[in-house]
Amino acid sequence: MPVYRIVLSYDGSEFHGWQRQPEQRTVQGELERALSIIYQDQTSVQGAGRTDAGVHALGQCASFAPTKELPTKKIFASLRSLLPEDMCPLELHRAPDDFNARFKASARFYTYRLGLGPCPPLRRIRWEPPFTLDLAAMRSALPALRAATDFTSFCTREAAAKGSRCEIRELLLELEGDEMRLRIGADRFLHNMVRIVVGTLVEIGRGRWHPERMSMIIAARDRCSAGPTAPPQGLFLARVEYPEAALTMSDREPD
Amino acid sequence: MPVYRIVLSYDGSEFHGWQRQPEQRTVQGELERALSIIYQDQTSVQGAGRTDAGVHALGQCASFAPTKELPTKKIFASLRSLLPEDMCPLELHRAPDDFNARFKASARFYTYRLGLGPCPPLRRIRWEPPFTLDLAAMRSALPALRAATDFTSFCTREAAAKGSRCEIRELLLELEGDEMRLRIGADRFLHNMVRIVVGTLVEIGRGRWHPERMSMIIAARDRCSAGPTAPPQGLFLARVEYPEAALTMSDREPD
Repeated sequence: MPVYRIVLSYDGSEFHGWQRQPEQRTVQGELERALSIIYQDQTSVQGAGRTDAGVHALGQCASFAPTKELPTKKIFASLRSLLPEDMCPLELHRAPDDFNARFKASARFYTYRLGLGPCPPLRRIRWEPPFTLDLAAMRSALPALRAATDFTSFCTREAAAKGSRCEIRELLLELEGDEMRLRIGADRFLHNMVRIVVGTLVEIGRGRWHPERMSMIIAARDRCSAGPTAPPQGLFLARVEYPEAALTMSDREPD
Repeated sequence: MPVYRIVLSYDGSEFHGWQRQPEQRTVQGELERALSIIYQDQTSVQGAGRTDAGVHALGQCASFAPTKELPTKKIFASLRSLLPEDMCPLELHRAPDDFNARFKASARFYTYRLGLGPCPPLRRIRWEPPFTLDLAAMRSALPALRAATDFTSFCTREAAAKGSRCEIRELLLELEGDEMRLRIGADRFLHNMVRIVVGTLVEIGRGRWHPERMSMIIAARDRCSAGPTAPPQGLFLARVEYPEAALTMSDREPD
């Protein structure tokens, strides 16, 4: 039976996060509901990043292995019509039999949007910290983060227990109009990691902490040493990367 | 007694438009409610542009003439705390006694955001027409609009009865990332004018109409000749312009 990789975007505002939960509206739950209608059979999906409530996605990836063969184009069109307005499938591809969107991912890339002035129409897709932020100070704290490998200070205690090593692939803080955008990529992310990194950078940007403190925060390996967790609505899962080999089909796609 | 000019931004999604209506949540209604609490007296406001339900504002202007003297900074701070999350005052200034945000305005500037691909997190702040759009074709229809003075074809019939002449000050169609943005400024706008202009440009962009048709549509002076009304969520009232003299106080502000 076939295996698929789906790329999708969603507005996280009205979801209780990615992960299926009884009695709650979740992204995984809605996607599985739609696929189960299409296949007339319960179909479960595995997501690359389990985004929290309020976190958005521009290119979340998920995999599923249905029990029937259906043309890829038909599944895609059915998903477009069955999924709610705040979710949208962007791509659908056949994948090798052993493909798994979560375990085969080699990197995830997130963007966090910080509004520098009040703009109510954008308040669902960015955070407006009520402080004046010093971009140069924030940027000078980035090299320490880029060099870090242990992110215990930037995750919940339960998450750290499951391993706290991450390899940063990209880390940029850009100014775009009246916004700062943090772009961060890594092989893996710990729970709340991007939001705690942002919360810590904001403490530096508003002048409460000196940029040099970042190295000490990393070395402390203690959640209490870092800044607060920034709110979810500024966070976007931008894209998920897979090794070429994980996506290459040995045979041609049948459709 | 003093007269004030306020500049404010709002997310139009959850408002039944600008204009006060019994039993409906409107921007004017919320602003008047907050001012009436601050002044402990019924205080009405006059807005420069009466935005429809779902239309956003980055720089709406309104005027009000309270029955008491209070320090400007204090009124501003009180408004910030009293207004709901989807509204935000940006500026508050004393204005001359004869100032009126609606009648003294010399120009309004709007932006309309068209999404060129699906992005659910942005669906409350742009329209994603389900067509491939030809930017060059749309742009070649702009000179006719720039030269037009009678916009009868681009408004509701009731609005045209009250005068249909407008002087275009700015008209640009820009490509920004995966979006087209129409920037349009004029001395005045008719009801639904920007949205009908956008709807007409989209008919041209998707290839249903030739760009040359724009001149015929203008000349027809008939709503039926133009395209459909584009949805409200892509429209932003960007700013309102006043002649220098309308804003200049003869005396110094007392605070």
